[in-house]
Amino acid sequence: MRPGKHPSVAVDGLVMHDGKLVAIRRKNEPFRGMPALPGGFLELGETVCDAVVREVREETGLETRTVRLVGVFSDPARDPRGHVISIVYELGGVGGALKAGSDASDIVLLDPRSLPRMAFDHNEIVRGWLSA
Amino acid sequence: MRPGKHPSVAVDGLVMHDGKLVAIRRKNEPFRGMPALPGGFLELGETVCDAVVREVREETGLETRTVRLVGVFSDPARDPRGHVISIVYELGGVGGALKAGSDASDIVLLDPRSLPRMAFDHNEIVRGWLSA
Repeated sequence: MRPGKHPSVAVDGLVMHDGKLVAIRRKNEPFRGMPALPGGFLELGETVCDAVVREVREETGLETRTVRLVGVFSDPARDPRGHVISIVYELGGVGGALKAGSDASDIVLLDPRSLPRMAFDHNEIVRGWLSA
Repeated sequence: MRPGKHPSVAVDGLVMHDGKLVAIRRKNEPFRGMPALPGGFLELGETVCDAVVREVREETGLETRTVRLVGVFSDPARDPRGHVISIVYELGGVGGALKAGSDASDIVLLDPRSLPRMAFDHNEIVRGWLSA
């Protein structure tokens, strides 16, 4: 899925692991090399909850379940590739072992109270989640 | 926007007016003639909040603002046209006068505790909202 004439839908997951926020270091543009929440595009025929659990598994190795819907982020300028809306879930029930997947060059565990600059609007997403 | 190879994004609004839930009677298929929440497809370059306020204005004549995100409904079978996810907001601050718009043949004011069969999964959406 790539952004086109219509807005595309992505999902991103907020996962805590040993007191840290699980992020990936992006292997690809845009924002290559920057930390980002695990996530990706919704596929045809899957629910958003299934999609975010799948993306977190593929990118981090962790088995999770959705805990709650955090928000929908739809600023047309949030993704330089085009209009991509992100549906963000808090995930829990963590199992599995951390292991970087296909779209991640590395996994980074972040102190959520002292975040580096993240890709897209992910700093804003995490800040809103922490203050909710 | 029409459903295609990727999931499409729609928005739907929950608006109370004089103690009743504002619905439209669908002029077009699918579910022609059935009551539905006011809503429609997200356009390229607009936020989901702007989209739901616009759709409610176009379909009902009411001026509203978003109060809170109610949920994201993404069952691939919820729309017979294809995979359309719906992002649902509760709206308030109602102004303007009720007036059926382009995609609505009529406006219907429903008792939210005694709903008729609605289009798509809109009964489920309203039930979840009332029980939250």
